Amino acid sequence: MAKLEGKVLVAQGGGPTAVINQSVAGVILESRKFGQVTRVYGALHGVNGIINENMVDLTEATTSSIETVAVTPSSGLLSTRDKPDEAYCKNIFEVCKAHGIRYFFYCGGNDSADTCRIVNQQAMDNSYELRVIHVPKTIDNDLKVTDHCPGYGSAAKFVAQAFAGANLDNRAIPGVYIGVVMGRHAGFLTAAAALGRKYPDDGPHLIYLPERAITKEKFVGDVKHAFEQYGRCVIAVSEGIVDDKGEAIASQFTGGEKDSHGNVQLSGTGALGDLLASWVKETKLTKRVRADTLGYLQRSFLGCVSETDQVEARAVGEKAAHYAIRHDLDGSVAIKRVADYVVSYYLTPLETVARYSTEMPDAFINEAGNGVTEDFLKYARPLAGVLPAWQRFDAPTVEKVMNK
Amino acid sequence: MAKLEGKVLVAQGGGPTAVINQSVAGVILESRKFGQVTRVYGALHGVNGIINENMVDLTEATTSSIETVAVTPSSGLLSTRDKPDEAYCKNIFEVCKAHGIRYFFYCGGNDSADTCRIVNQQAMDNSYELRVIHVPKTIDNDLKVTDHCPGYGSAAKFVAQAFAGANLDNRAIPGVYIGVVMGRHAGFLTAAAALGRKYPDDGPHLIYLPERAITKEKFVGDVKHAFEQYGRCVIAVSEGIVDDKGEAIASQFTGGEKDSHGNVQLSGTGALGDLLASWVKETKLTKRVRADTLGYLQRSFLGCVSETDQVEARAVGEKAAHYAIRHDLDGSVAIKRVADYVVSYYLTPLETVARYSTEMPDAFINEAGNGVTEDFLKYARPLAGVLPAWQRFDAPTVEKVMNK
Repeated sequence: MAKLEGKVLVAQGGGPTAVINQSVAGVILESRKFGQVTRVYGALHGVNGIINENMVDLTEATTSSIETVAVTPSSGLLSTRDKPDEAYCKNIFEVCKAHGIRYFFYCGGNDSADTCRIVNQQAMDNSYELRVIHVPKTIDNDLKVTDHCPGYGSAAKFVAQAFAGANLDNRAIPGVYIGVVMGRHAGFLTAAAALGRKYPDDGPHLIYLPERAITKEKFVGDVKHAFEQYGRCVIAVSEGIVDDKGEAIASQFTGGEKDSHGNVQLSGTGALGDLLASWVKETKLTKRVRADTLGYLQRSFLGCVSETDQVEARAVGEKAAHYAIRHDLDGSVAIKRVADYVVSYYLTPLETVARYSTEMPDAFINEAGNGVTEDFLKYARPLAGVLPAWQRFDAPTVEKVMNK
Repeated sequence: MAKLEGKVLVAQGGGPTAVINQSVAGVILESRKFGQVTRVYGALHGVNGIINENMVDLTEATTSSIETVAVTPSSGLLSTRDKPDEAYCKNIFEVCKAHGIRYFFYCGGNDSADTCRIVNQQAMDNSYELRVIHVPKTIDNDLKVTDHCPGYGSAAKFVAQAFAGANLDNRAIPGVYIGVVMGRHAGFLTAAAALGRKYPDDGPHLIYLPERAITKEKFVGDVKHAFEQYGRCVIAVSEGIVDDKGEAIASQFTGGEKDSHGNVQLSGTGALGDLLASWVKETKLTKRVRADTLGYLQRSFLGCVSETDQVEARAVGEKAAHYAIRHDLDGSVAIKRVADYVVSYYLTPLETVARYSTEMPDAFINEAGNGVTEDFLKYARPLAGVLPAWQRFDAPTVEKVMNK
């Protein structure tokens, strides 16, 4: 088989992650090693940059500067919320053809995988040789097929460190603390709050996931019970929690604003946390009720990266280059867990990842629907990696003299 | 002068910081080196633990375990919001006397300094030798006399890293982003968002501090102007911003809940951010308007510490032990900036720090009242220390083929 000579095009779509630039760096640096690659282009603002020919020539970027972008959070090539339909994808294909692009790498979630699938089909229909690889990323960890998704581990580490700290804060000045975590349909990221626990009475004491409906009655009952037990309560709540009709509780606050994917806005407001805080305040359990919404820091905070995640994000980008350029294949790069903890990479057909997403398996959620299982912790711990050290004072109690 | 033999008592008051345990570790470990110190006690939950004789014997804590607590955020000896009056302080004094405490170290803000002042006075009035040292801490950086306050640098670093990331996120998917930062009357922490800027068009593009009143009209006008210039807008807002009547805008959302210091609750709700977002949405500038409230992560996130702050927090604790035990002095430990960047420590009378707080000097705020000056950046940079590396892609634009 003759080597397919031509240009590489790489782009990033959807919400950023802390390590998405590692994947792009992997694609760029590995692609540049192949003789049949004439140029490496990057589209700005994802597919939107392709159809508008808004591209930069990354062949000219120095390796050292790419390495610094690699450790930078958020999409270095900028991103888009555009969700291409057939006509849009036709434009993508036409631009690829016009520029002599032979290898297209798109780093994103399930919608980006679907774009890859359509563009790949159109190239085939037009007998144009175009290798298309979907490079997975999402903080939600909701992609199908793969064991887990690059971007999740670092976001999970951020959430774990946030709740480890919030728990220490809540222990110092007791009350009820609610932390709202990103995640539309999948609770993986919210569940990661449990990785911040160490001592038996550490919070989060309650964890609410989109996979289990909650009612005000159940929530308030759980909080009362935990407060009786611990004299305080730390709660992790997904922004995507639903009521018993399956409606996202947060959607009532955001005026039904929808993105181009038809998803109602959930993030970027503190209203859900404030509603839950008002439920707790009604109980008069404590005067001190606080709600934080962790917000965009979860995916773009500078300086909180899981080492595992960083390495794997780079690897899926490098593997993508190899699959397309060396092996002449299309598909989505997936991760298999082969030992505790070792992974291998493989290619799965685009249609197996496109469009649909996954949720937390039942085995990861406790029976009461307000916490996670040991199975989940075992799954998530190596992904978030090692947290910074923390400890309580260990000293004997002083005998009372006055208030005996 | 005979050496004053007796016990040491150390406690922590008010909101935690990321490095408050460094100060306590400094007091404990340095105190234990003096022969006249018979025991080192720690009161749990601050002054509340003293009057209830809820104390632990830190003489028994291993040095290595204390070192791990030192790097743990939030108050390892737990904290309190109690603000002692004369009668309360009388109880503190009586417990100190009953236990043979001769050295009392209280780590906190201006209210804790006031507690130190009153207890010190009562000991003198009762002819009981009791050295009292206030060890400064606050993320707000609003203590009088000292150049800056331990705890601020690490919180400033967190805020800078949060806004550096939020800016990268906002650049990838443009819109208006509002981040609400802690700080009741002093804007130092909100101003630290500016340390997250690198490129000329980086956000935060607007910074609102409690020292300058804002109106809806001015705010909206500023945002429109910035959006026209950058095609996006990142805004840092203090939770303590006031309207033109001097009222905290956030106070309308928190039901007027007051702590025992008479302060209205400002934190722990997303309502201020949501109000400001609604103002921006009315302009129809962009559909994408998001508000995050950084919340308790600012003071207790696990794993974000300024190296400078860590060293200085330890030093003020160690210095406190020396002033009291070696030099037989009372007072509040203060920091002087002697070079760029070198500090020295000194003792200032308790009454110079007690009760009153400071605000940002005019020289740190720009004329328009929506940003900070180069003077502020020069002041704050060494305190927050070095941020993690980040960078944009540097590559030439690809020439258009289709849309020429």
